Amino acid sequence: MSTEEIENTVEEVKDKENPKNPKEISKDGSFKRQKNRFTTPFGDGQGEVPVEKGRYRLLWSPACPWAHRSVIVRKILGLENVISLGTASPMRPNIPRVDWEFSLDKNGADPVLGVKYISEVYLNTDPDYDGRPTVPVMVDVFTKKAVNNDYFKLTNYLETVWAPYHQDNAPDLYPEELRPSIDELNDTIFHEINNGVYKCGFAHSQEAYEAAYDTLFKRLDLLEERLADQRFLFGDYITDSDVRLYATLVRFDVAYYNAFNTNRNLIREFPNLWGYLRDLYQTTGFGETTDFDAIKQHYHLSITINPEKNDVKVLPKGPDLSVFHTSHGRETLSGKKEKFLYR
Amino acid sequence: MSTEEIENTVEEVKDKENPKNPKEISKDGSFKRQKNRFTTPFGDGQGEVPVEKGRYRLLWSPACPWAHRSVIVRKILGLENVISLGTASPMRPNIPRVDWEFSLDKNGADPVLGVKYISEVYLNTDPDYDGRPTVPVMVDVFTKKAVNNDYFKLTNYLETVWAPYHQDNAPDLYPEELRPSIDELNDTIFHEINNGVYKCGFAHSQEAYEAAYDTLFKRLDLLEERLADQRFLFGDYITDSDVRLYATLVRFDVAYYNAFNTNRNLIREFPNLWGYLRDLYQTTGFGETTDFDAIKQHYHLSITINPEKNDVKVLPKGPDLSVFHTSHGRETLSGKKEKFLYR
Repeated sequence: MSTEEIENTVEEVKDKENPKNPKEISKDGSFKRQKNRFTTPFGDGQGEVPVEKGRYRLLWSPACPWAHRSVIVRKILGLENVISLGTASPMRPNIPRVDWEFSLDKNGADPVLGVKYISEVYLNTDPDYDGRPTVPVMVDVFTKKAVNNDYFKLTNYLETVWAPYHQDNAPDLYPEELRPSIDELNDTIFHEINNGVYKCGFAHSQEAYEAAYDTLFKRLDLLEERLADQRFLFGDYITDSDVRLYATLVRFDVAYYNAFNTNRNLIREFPNLWGYLRDLYQTTGFGETTDFDAIKQHYHLSITINPEKNDVKVLPKGPDLSVFHTSHGRETLSGKKEKFLYR
Repeated sequence: MSTEEIENTVEEVKDKENPKNPKEISKDGSFKRQKNRFTTPFGDGQGEVPVEKGRYRLLWSPACPWAHRSVIVRKILGLENVISLGTASPMRPNIPRVDWEFSLDKNGADPVLGVKYISEVYLNTDPDYDGRPTVPVMVDVFTKKAVNNDYFKLTNYLETVWAPYHQDNAPDLYPEELRPSIDELNDTIFHEINNGVYKCGFAHSQEAYEAAYDTLFKRLDLLEERLADQRFLFGDYITDSDVRLYATLVRFDVAYYNAFNTNRNLIREFPNLWGYLRDLYQTTGFGETTDFDAIKQHYHLSITINPEKNDVKVLPKGPDLSVFHTSHGRETLSGKKEKFLYR
């Protein structure tokens, strides 16, 4: 099933984050993620969102894997002075609505946009917007309207049409000849892993949960094999697919294994995936944008993840995170010194 | 702090299993297990509970580690035809009270005692009993009254004053010359591990949780060292202390790691503890009395463990349990063929 197809089923169902009326749960108890609302592509064509330095602010939370991937790519490509960054708290409020809030900023508002909640930029754009306000979202700093919240394609825009603003000698994360293969793998990674862990965690039936669990671990087993004799998913160099897989793998042992019941194995029990994960973590753009505290707070304490658990909230102390800095030995799989493809 | 001391603090606090009025939570948010109510020793002395074949029924649930240890010892010593066994469901009811029920038996009643709930034998004994009804409990089959629910000492009674009923050539799990050392280690295992995991899972404050977590893993690290060059806790032979440690270790990866937030490391990540656990699991009395389904249902689904989580209940599918049957290589640590001490 393509991304488009699965997302088209969403409107039939209700909101998970209000457990009494779960919008994104279908009749069989499975989780169906809502469609993105603002998906006009970036580009210079008619009806596209223009690519411009200093015009947009990327709103994210370090907790969110969908937003994290955009921030990794922004960093690797040196777009930090081109697209500014606003950071929402990992602890989501659900009053007056399920939202993301700028409670970490002075006065609880984003210093550039002046908004307290991310829903504000969605409502600025469409006063009738009634979906979940999501991150990542690219916001026009002048109109304060959301221009794009297409987490699936955002990194690809940054990698392609944003190229005129890349730093000198930025690597190519989305090489033209590999794009069909990367797109195909990205679709699999999306359904079975990135969203697969959510399908486990948000399932409302045992059957839906077990189906998602089986699919997830079957795919992890296949990727474990794939990474046995190559350093990254497409060989010697990091691509967009690695960024997408990383965003889920790095959250797995600290969050999903417990909070989403993805407990067949920890990632650190897969020798190749674990070496691969540490290899990426220790690479520019990855570890430095990974905020384990935010991730743990969000998945273990945020009301939107555990709407039923209001009483006692304890943040799990484990696992030991120092292991992310240990050597992985995967350099030997690649003949190359560089991990990125520079043209 | 001795077992007696910590248990004496219990009456000051309220019931955890009713989260609105948590009886066993002290002011600092830490969990204090209630005292046992029926602790008259077994023996032939004045005022002791007489040791007699066919007179008592041991009530347990395979979910419960405190009960499991008694059932392991009963099996190893060959007391199965001496003390009968009644098995409560791992899914505890909380209406009309927090209880254990015989819902697995025909007509939902224990076939020997005729009771539906374990609370009935407690109330038969003391109509004013208002503690939690606990397993294990030894019940007089004629009066249907609880005669002993002292989980801490019950295995020691089975190992000593019940000796006249042991099978021929039963091993000695509590050798006289080791008793002071076994008692001392049992006290540590009780506070830091057996009850330590509950202190993590039932803590009502972050501080109480973290203190219990630190104590638990510090002790596991020490036991990991202790088991590096000896097969069992006291050398070449299994003792009562091994039974006690086993009951917690075998539940750790399948239940506590997730349900009680004891997530620094899985037991299968400690080389020595993991080999030791499998060694015991593969020994008469251990694996055959270990019901992983019951354990998982209890800790992940039972209302008494997750009183706050009423909405969506999914049973985690993992971890892979086939690994319990893999070879552990610990025979080489012991010069002996036998794992038990036979006099």
